[in-house]
Amino acid sequence: MRIKEQLKQLKPYQPGKPIEEVKREYGLDKVVKLASNENPFGCSEAAKEALQQEIEQLALYPDGYSAALRTRLSEHLNVSEKSLIFGNGSDELVQIICRSFLNEKTNTITAASTFPQYKHNAVIEGAEVREIAIRQDGGHDLDAMLAAIDENTQIVWVCSPNNPTGTYTAESELLSFLNRVPSHVLVVLDEAYYEYVTAEDYPESIPLLEKHPNLIILRTFSKAYGLAALRVGYGIASEALIRQIEPAREPFNTSRLGQAAAIAALSDQDFIASCVKKNAAGLKQYYDFAKTHGLRYYPSQTNFVLIDFNRPADELFQALLQKGYIVRSGNALGFPTSLRITIGTKEQNEEILTILAEML
Amino acid sequence: MRIKEQLKQLKPYQPGKPIEEVKREYGLDKVVKLASNENPFGCSEAAKEALQQEIEQLALYPDGYSAALRTRLSEHLNVSEKSLIFGNGSDELVQIICRSFLNEKTNTITAASTFPQYKHNAVIEGAEVREIAIRQDGGHDLDAMLAAIDENTQIVWVCSPNNPTGTYTAESELLSFLNRVPSHVLVVLDEAYYEYVTAEDYPESIPLLEKHPNLIILRTFSKAYGLAALRVGYGIASEALIRQIEPAREPFNTSRLGQAAAIAALSDQDFIASCVKKNAAGLKQYYDFAKTHGLRYYPSQTNFVLIDFNRPADELFQALLQKGYIVRSGNALGFPTSLRITIGTKEQNEEILTILAEML
Repeated sequence: MRIKEQLKQLKPYQPGKPIEEVKREYGLDKVVKLASNENPFGCSEAAKEALQQEIEQLALYPDGYSAALRTRLSEHLNVSEKSLIFGNGSDELVQIICRSFLNEKTNTITAASTFPQYKHNAVIEGAEVREIAIRQDGGHDLDAMLAAIDENTQIVWVCSPNNPTGTYTAESELLSFLNRVPSHVLVVLDEAYYEYVTAEDYPESIPLLEKHPNLIILRTFSKAYGLAALRVGYGIASEALIRQIEPAREPFNTSRLGQAAAIAALSDQDFIASCVKKNAAGLKQYYDFAKTHGLRYYPSQTNFVLIDFNRPADELFQALLQKGYIVRSGNALGFPTSLRITIGTKEQNEEILTILAEML
Repeated sequence: MRIKEQLKQLKPYQPGKPIEEVKREYGLDKVVKLASNENPFGCSEAAKEALQQEIEQLALYPDGYSAALRTRLSEHLNVSEKSLIFGNGSDELVQIICRSFLNEKTNTITAASTFPQYKHNAVIEGAEVREIAIRQDGGHDLDAMLAAIDENTQIVWVCSPNNPTGTYTAESELLSFLNRVPSHVLVVLDEAYYEYVTAEDYPESIPLLEKHPNLIILRTFSKAYGLAALRVGYGIASEALIRQIEPAREPFNTSRLGQAAAIAALSDQDFIASCVKKNAAGLKQYYDFAKTHGLRYYPSQTNFVLIDFNRPADELFQALLQKGYIVRSGNALGFPTSLRITIGTKEQNEEILTILAEML
């Protein structure tokens, strides 16, 4: 058997330690995970309730067109139903897009560092990946990304707010970029953390679709909506673009339960507003801590913050693990002396910051 | 934007009519769907119960390694944990395999007619698809499939029992085939309907993995286990093969709820045994009907049956739809005068057969 050469250079998924295993290994009663940017406040009660009736229909395939969710989301976003595509998490949409546009004759441009699935999926397609260093302020260097475009460039990825920095691309920057990108290049604007954004100059991207048919926006129910367990993401683009990439989507890629929970979650915007408010207060806890201790951090528009502790991140990660706090070491993310910490509840934030203060 | 040429020849998913819409359109109180080979007896109560505690953890990502389900399934199948890979339905495993092995320089061999996702995914990868007509008895023509192999052949697909015929490849045929397939060719044995099989000469495939490192077996929780809503399929192969294709799997491709329900469902083999028994009795209802009316059918090892009504299938489909019965027209499946009907409950089978008798 001859597997594609490019797969040999990729590592299979390395499972993180389950909370139960961390408890056993370190003899802990309580373990707090602030590593995967999950919503510490859970999800809307309406989403949980919506699942009860689906539990009686587990033998039935999902609606492959996600018709009910499609209608509800198109109303919520004020876009046409045919301008939406759903994914098994927005990471599946990254895969669908790569499958549709990339092969070994093409290249794609990403920031470094950013969400790793852009590169991972592009490598599987055999495409060249051009990684453009982020700016000192953590933002995408869009001018450098533009300069890297050539006739074989198929996709430019703009993650805003960016993971793992939490920084965003301001409206003026994005507009200038979109106006200069050649029309043969698809721009993927990944807004996985969209709901958390409070910055006033963060662009409202959907109206940009009309002028820029080479733009697709990705969002998800896994972050602020608190439905990561159920894997529902979506893309918004011109109807023509959606129609082109639809054949690369597996027919039943979102579950019945995911669709039902997402519909209910959309109707509870009070829950989102409350989470965003608490998240902003939580971010301030980390900012105050960083300032007190003279640590550099990136101001974040997300539910995580990347703080530079000026010491090997893996060691700090390990020390926190032993005390029952799972965070993300920046080492594998391109920030070898930083930790990426998910904003938890007020109490969780206080606890981990107290422990971190003792370690400094 | 330049989408891959091969995607232009593929049709996006065409949504079937939702039951509610059929009710409205035809003024019906009751609509019975016997079209998607869903389990008419639902799923194990244990699976439903297992979901209740997951509903309190919707904000948490699934375990990307499916560790708990992996352990439970490896015990159930008596295989090592590392010889398993999980998919968002077994159709995602078809995609993962195609992504791992196919490109425009390669070819792949399928039966005609068989499950359409093999061809669909191969076309997306740009591979040549060699379709080998099935035999008169509905079985795969393995000798002809062997003869079609050349040095650029990467995958041969054996669907057993086959969809849409319901026929199977007997042990002696499979062994003879596996012994002759060149070692550079991956054999995918799709056993989506495995649990329904009652034929004594149906091969027990897992022990064949030891001698045939170029074999991968696909199974699913969507059919007999009655969990189609939750999208969990799996592959079984050598640890080396699984390790090679794992990077082509999205990290969080199965949901928390899917994993939990599958674990519980595995522990209720009484449910499976009961469904298999009722399914066999249901098949006999259709066989008796076909014999009475002199209609040709393929003896089935699945929960569906393909019957040749000697008239345009689309017309018969439409006539049944107006009476509230959704089945699958054979027209798009390569059988223009046949219907593929899912075996329902005893009462559902009686009802549709009464209506069909009136139409003949």
